[in-house]
Amino acid sequence: MTAQDDVQDRLDQATAALTPRLQAARAAGRVLATQTSAAKDAALTAIADALVAREESVLEANAADLERARVEGLPTPLHDRLRLDHDRVAALAAAVRDVAALEDPVGTVVRGRRLPNGVRIEQVRVPFGVLGVIYEARPNVTVDIAALALKSGNAVVLRGGSAARETNRVLVEVLREAVASVGLPADAIASVDDWGRAGADVLMQARGLVDVLIPRGGRSLIQHVVRTAAVPVIETGDGNVHVYLDASADVRRACDIVVNSKTQRVSVCNAAETLLVHRDAVDRVLPAVLAALHDRDVVIHGDDTVQGIDPDAVAATEADWGTEYLALEMAVHVVDSLDEAIAHINRWSTHHTESIVTEDYANAERFLAEVDSAVVMVNASTRFTDGGQFGFGAEVGISTQKLHARGPMGLPELTSAKWLVRGEGQVRE
Amino acid sequence: MTAQDDVQDRLDQATAALTPRLQAARAAGRVLATQTSAAKDAALTAIADALVAREESVLEANAADLERARVEGLPTPLHDRLRLDHDRVAALAAAVRDVAALEDPVGTVVRGRRLPNGVRIEQVRVPFGVLGVIYEARPNVTVDIAALALKSGNAVVLRGGSAARETNRVLVEVLREAVASVGLPADAIASVDDWGRAGADVLMQARGLVDVLIPRGGRSLIQHVVRTAAVPVIETGDGNVHVYLDASADVRRACDIVVNSKTQRVSVCNAAETLLVHRDAVDRVLPAVLAALHDRDVVIHGDDTVQGIDPDAVAATEADWGTEYLALEMAVHVVDSLDEAIAHINRWSTHHTESIVTEDYANAERFLAEVDSAVVMVNASTRFTDGGQFGFGAEVGISTQKLHARGPMGLPELTSAKWLVRGEGQVRE
Repeated sequence: MTAQDDVQDRLDQATAALTPRLQAARAAGRVLATQTSAAKDAALTAIADALVAREESVLEANAADLERARVEGLPTPLHDRLRLDHDRVAALAAAVRDVAALEDPVGTVVRGRRLPNGVRIEQVRVPFGVLGVIYEARPNVTVDIAALALKSGNAVVLRGGSAARETNRVLVEVLREAVASVGLPADAIASVDDWGRAGADVLMQARGLVDVLIPRGGRSLIQHVVRTAAVPVIETGDGNVHVYLDASADVRRACDIVVNSKTQRVSVCNAAETLLVHRDAVDRVLPAVLAALHDRDVVIHGDDTVQGIDPDAVAATEADWGTEYLALEMAVHVVDSLDEAIAHINRWSTHHTESIVTEDYANAERFLAEVDSAVVMVNASTRFTDGGQFGFGAEVGISTQKLHARGPMGLPELTSAKWLVRGEGQVRE
Repeated sequence: MTAQDDVQDRLDQATAALTPRLQAARAAGRVLATQTSAAKDAALTAIADALVAREESVLEANAADLERARVEGLPTPLHDRLRLDHDRVAALAAAVRDVAALEDPVGTVVRGRRLPNGVRIEQVRVPFGVLGVIYEARPNVTVDIAALALKSGNAVVLRGGSAARETNRVLVEVLREAVASVGLPADAIASVDDWGRAGADVLMQARGLVDVLIPRGGRSLIQHVVRTAAVPVIETGDGNVHVYLDASADVRRACDIVVNSKTQRVSVCNAAETLLVHRDAVDRVLPAVLAALHDRDVVIHGDDTVQGIDPDAVAATEADWGTEYLALEMAVHVVDSLDEAIAHINRWSTHHTESIVTEDYANAERFLAEVDSAVVMVNASTRFTDGGQFGFGAEVGISTQKLHARGPMGLPELTSAKWLVRGEGQVRE
């Protein structure tokens, strides 16, 4: 038996074992789809209460995961993402109550009209049915995503990172019991973690049982899901974000926006990674910006011009234009024109967020029109690309694809639509 | 060298040959994205004029395809789908002028607000960039899709059926010359037909070069694309459509709607395939409906109850519930309740269109809420599920997936969105 046969064998076993679970999620989703907002909010309140009440079991499971992380030598920064404590469990419960307070997107009439023959048509928001979510270490995602799915009337099937498997197992148990306690089907929240990677593989192939798959995590996870899944995917994350200082950029604004975009939080997808500077702004603007970045201990990867004015700059190679550092490092490149800046961005960006700093009206409007990214900004920090900042009240993720959702996703992006048609016996001539 | 190696080799060659063509489409798409509606409409008018002017070359190429179809023994119904003549070319040109007259979806502001810090955000419709379309024999799709893509500011790369390859080659040539004649890039319309199936395979894997792939054709084509493509797909077509006669169904309406849904045009995705009947309506309603269907030469595949009242009915097997006949045949099944009807539909339907015939308010509303299909109707023919009938003015296709578009797709469904953010130096606290 080859290694490939082994993998196929394991996948076949997982498919056989998990199909009934996905069918149960589908059935539970049909029940959720017609619940009132009040019924769904009652379930969310029960979840928040249960998280507080069951804190001890959650922290015990989390301690086991942390101990395993220590023994297995998981990198230290990941320990913090994995760790829960009293305050963090309380924050999880509070986040669930926040989701309950959001507006329910289900039932919203998107548009409608009366046809010439008297038939009325209307397009209304409905839940997808069953969401699949594949994510990495952070156990808070388990609770956040389950709450958002429930509020939007969707069942959810979770595949969390194996580092958090004990914590996630207990969390899913707590969530399911809470949902059942208010008379809704526990199967609306399910996990395939007991099947490990094969569980993720089953989710990716479950056409007809999983309506949409959302991968949340690093680039390699997301690329794997996008290339492998037969189920429709919403691609998230992955931000090679640019700030461009136009010839007319205000020095103060340039410093504020570059420093904030780069350093306010470095490990997130809306943090800036590359700084482009118009040649005419190099002498007037760039020295102050580089000094401000050095003050924050940012390592500069510069082209020849940048190295000429900044002795501390490391030589940038082409690889730097495509790198998402997620660290206190920034690529800096001088361009001869707005056209060159736009072309560079459209060539190297992951199409997440880009910002121009300019005082020139025409250049601002051209940048907004011609940069092909989910969010395009003038004179603002790239860190504003965020569901919370946009006023959506919840962070489902940030889509970098063009289909269905693009940019920060709120609850409405977790719904599909359906056309309702009402007639009195009309037929087509 | 194995057959699999041969296929991989051919795919590698096609990828190397076609990548520059896709990059040229990408560049052309960026030019189209910022054109005014007037500029795009001028290109559409040039296309319509060119189709009329170049009719002779188009018909010559079409004659060659028809001759090859005859020699190769293509089934006769496909000859008609392949055939162009003077009237059909004129109709193609007229359809392009109709598309020019539609409202341009690009630039529409979907929503927007001012954030508490003064930053203004707005979500606007933008073109996807590059559409890939894979379709079967009908050459009219070549012109229709190219016109819809151009109007919505998208470049398009086409892979038509090999039966129409000469016709499509000449049509694409005519379209490209017309676009270039008004100063827009000819590369906005491209074909990969010269690489046959390998051309389709390249489109399906062209992440970053093709933004969305739309397969149009039979079930096997669509399933192949959905399962194989790494590029996001909009799934279309495929309608196992149901009409349900509730206990209270009006006899006249039941006859009209069933006959129209089944027979008004049998080869299309919104034609009904299965009739469900509440047991309490069997004696009162079903005989008249079956008689009306027999009048139209519809072959009935019935369950035991149906066979009991219709001696001409063929015995239905479970396979019939899942069959899209696309012919004068209909499966007929008696159910004991509305619940059973809804469960049967949600089990067997392709989630395209379903209609209930009822006089009961509560049952009508339950059917609308609980049937999980793109279009759900009360007392209306399923043949109304159509972009033209819905007033969209153009037929991009009918989506049976839940992501991005569901049901009839109009021009807005050929766009994505983009967030524009305007500030005065705001940064995140």
